[in-house]
Amino acid sequence: MMQKIEHIGIAVKDAEKSIALFNLLLNQEPYKKEVVESESVQTIFYQNGPNKIELLQGLSEDSAISKFIAKKGEGIHHIAFAVEDIVAELKRLKEAGFQLIHETPKLGADNKLIAFVHPKDTNGVLIELCQER
Amino acid sequence: MMQKIEHIGIAVKDAEKSIALFNLLLNQEPYKKEVVESESVQTIFYQNGPNKIELLQGLSEDSAISKFIAKKGEGIHHIAFAVEDIVAELKRLKEAGFQLIHETPKLGADNKLIAFVHPKDTNGVLIELCQER
Repeated sequence: MMQKIEHIGIAVKDAEKSIALFNLLLNQEPYKKEVVESESVQTIFYQNGPNKIELLQGLSEDSAISKFIAKKGEGIHHIAFAVEDIVAELKRLKEAGFQLIHETPKLGADNKLIAFVHPKDTNGVLIELCQER
Repeated sequence: MMQKIEHIGIAVKDAEKSIALFNLLLNQEPYKKEVVESESVQTIFYQNGPNKIELLQGLSEDSAISKFIAKKGEGIHHIAFAVEDIVAELKRLKEAGFQLIHETPKLGADNKLIAFVHPKDTNGVLIELCQER
C-alpha cells in the first residue's frame, strides 16, 4: 500500500545554488546531505511536514540525473511513495502489469530500500517505492 | 509556512486511460472529479495518506495543460504546498525575490485558494501554494 508521498526528487545542475534557492522557498535548511556513490549523485533532503524534498545533482556525466538534465532540463525527476512492504508492493505492481526498473529492492539514500517503476507505464512519471529500513 | 506537499499535479492526455492506470498504481479510486472551467481542465483527485495526486487533462488546445503536454509530454506538472496563510506566504516569497505568476490568490479546484510561483526561479519546478477555504 502506498502510504504517502515520501518525497519528491528534483534534478538540479548546481546543488549549492539550489540549496540557497530552496532554503528561501521552504524557509528552512536541509536536514541531510548524502552522496550515493553507486548512483554518482549528491542528494540534499528537506523535511516538509510528513514529506520530504530531495534535490539531486549528478556527480558525473553518466549519472542518471546528469542524463535527465541533459535531455529534459532541471525539474521534477520522480515521486517516491512510502510503502510498508516493498517486496509485496513490487509483486502487486508487477502482477498488475507495470514494468519494474528494479524487480528487487536496493539500498538507496536516506536509509531506505528503494525500487523504481518504469515511467512508460505511468504517464511519463518516474515512480519510486521506498521502505524505511 | 509550507506545511506539507498538498498534492502533485500530473498532466495527462486522456483522463479515462490515466484513471484506469492510477487506480491500479495506487490501488484505490479517485475521490473527486472536477472540471475547472476557467482553466479549461478536467481534474481527478486521489487521496494518498496526508497527500493527494491530481491528474489534469486539458479540455481545449489553449489550456495550460494541453500546452504543457505539447511541449514536454505527459508527466509531473507541478508541486502544490499547503499553506495556512497564502497572502502572507506570497508576500514572503515576493520579498525573497521569487517571481509570482499570481500576486493574489485565486479560486482553484478542490475548494482551495491557489497561486503559482514562476518555475524560472525554482529550478524549473512549477510551485503552487494552496490554502483550504
